[in-house]
Amino acid sequence: MSDGSFSGPASGPGKFTSRHLTVVGLGLIGGSMARALRGWAETITGVDMDAHTRDYALSEGIVDYATDDLREGVAEADSVVLATPVRTIMTLVQKRIGAYLRSNTLLIDVGSTKQDICMAMGGLPIGIQAIGGHPMAGKENSGVDASDAALFHGRPFVLCPTRRTTPATRVRALSLAEAVGAVPIEMEAHRHDHLVATISHLPYLLSAALVSTVAQQGKSDEAAWRLAAGGFRDMSRLAGSDISMMTDIFSTNTQAVATLLAHFRVQLAILETLLISRDEAGLAEWLTQARDARNHWAQDYGAGGNTGGKK
Amino acid sequence: MSDGSFSGPASGPGKFTSRHLTVVGLGLIGGSMARALRGWAETITGVDMDAHTRDYALSEGIVDYATDDLREGVAEADSVVLATPVRTIMTLVQKRIGAYLRSNTLLIDVGSTKQDICMAMGGLPIGIQAIGGHPMAGKENSGVDASDAALFHGRPFVLCPTRRTTPATRVRALSLAEAVGAVPIEMEAHRHDHLVATISHLPYLLSAALVSTVAQQGKSDEAAWRLAAGGFRDMSRLAGSDISMMTDIFSTNTQAVATLLAHFRVQLAILETLLISRDEAGLAEWLTQARDARNHWAQDYGAGGNTGGKK
Repeated sequence: MSDGSFSGPASGPGKFTSRHLTVVGLGLIGGSMARALRGWAETITGVDMDAHTRDYALSEGIVDYATDDLREGVAEADSVVLATPVRTIMTLVQKRIGAYLRSNTLLIDVGSTKQDICMAMGGLPIGIQAIGGHPMAGKENSGVDASDAALFHGRPFVLCPTRRTTPATRVRALSLAEAVGAVPIEMEAHRHDHLVATISHLPYLLSAALVSTVAQQGKSDEAAWRLAAGGFRDMSRLAGSDISMMTDIFSTNTQAVATLLAHFRVQLAILETLLISRDEAGLAEWLTQARDARNHWAQDYGAGGNTGGKK
Repeated sequence: MSDGSFSGPASGPGKFTSRHLTVVGLGLIGGSMARALRGWAETITGVDMDAHTRDYALSEGIVDYATDDLREGVAEADSVVLATPVRTIMTLVQKRIGAYLRSNTLLIDVGSTKQDICMAMGGLPIGIQAIGGHPMAGKENSGVDASDAALFHGRPFVLCPTRRTTPATRVRALSLAEAVGAVPIEMEAHRHDHLVATISHLPYLLSAALVSTVAQQGKSDEAAWRLAAGGFRDMSRLAGSDISMMTDIFSTNTQAVATLLAHFRVQLAILETLLISRDEAGLAEWLTQARDARNHWAQDYGAGGNTGGKK
């Protein structure tokens, strides 16, 4: 298992180059990948089911060609980025794309969970250079019109090996991550999924459960909604996230999320005990540890993050 | 029990006036109250234990006089705002201020919990016009140098009756709330404390418990901190709140907070069951309800709120 160390430019894998790059799924992330790789690829093709999205991407110069035909879109590519929702990535990898790709094509996805996808990639034909990817970046808005070449700047870009990851695959993926301005971090898919359950999927569930709790109270006293202020706004923002994206994530990361919920319940129980027993010194000490941990994070890592949910 | 209806200017209580206003505790809220009431009071005295705070408030013209002597500070006042932390308010009301105030003085506090304070106010000498108050406003920064005359604009200002609240007290408090630009909402202290447990104290505890959960994971894998992004930032912000303010709040609202924690655990258990049983349709429906509730809130009430916690 990698220690997840940063790969700085000095020790970097060399520059990313592609004669023909194809991005499948031109949403916020796919569109931003295409924009960010503009200077590194001679030709960019976009594959998307939505005609308006294709038109927009063409008219904005995000892609050179656009099609709704996967086979046609990837046939000439030497590098393919899968940027659809997680379960669509699974379907593409398991059922279709292996037969369409040329040998030695770099295939990388940008899905939010990695274990299922990397396992599926392992079943691709030998010769496909497949690797799992997850750039840790987001934005309040979704869709190609929110795409941004700078979305990945300074953000971690997790890379997870598959059975189809050769040394050359790894070098090409590292260079792709650096080309979009991100900081590549290599780790096993299992470790990634546990980490994102911790820092992304659990927070979303807590946000949704909080909103649901307030909604229950709001049924008997509407003033609950009226009095809610900035603290509730922050804590409820993630609950506004895209549901199909989140259910895709949960269906492919159930075990890790359930484990983290169990860990969270332990922490909440400690807190509740300190509160109910009126152990004020213990409560203050516990809350101070949380505050200090949060402030250290904000100082060390918190400056570069994009906002994940909706307003 | 009041239905918490808005008191608009047309049906309002008339303009607030004070010959001599005293604000006890020149922090963010006290300083902002003094600034916001500048045009409505002939003279403003500030009481604060901290010499730097008094000097700052004097030099900025936030107050006309400043002292660390409570008796001296309130002796000439016809209106007194208590803006110290909750337990200091309790001590002032129970042990000291009753003997110092002139008859017919309006005494209002701005503490975050109301039941204990309003109960204590009921024990003040007859003739003191005492009422509990809670302007639902905050800011990332604390202290008098962060004070802002516009802090309360458009925000709810809860008013809770005590045994020392006469009809005249009520009218004066309503006019004070409107003078600072807030929207007064009258309700019983018990109802207020249950509502703020729901929309303020529970969210804080969840934020702290989330940070603690991430910190536990971070001990075995430091990359948890490194990968955390905007979602974690939003959800952990409240954990950075002032600890002594929060422990004051919990010590005076233990029962309501414990009740809300129990309600929250029910919602979390429903969510966990849907997740683990892989009931995808049920999970999507539940999450959609939370998302819609959040979006309705943001649309109806979410625009005017200040940010409660730290960055």
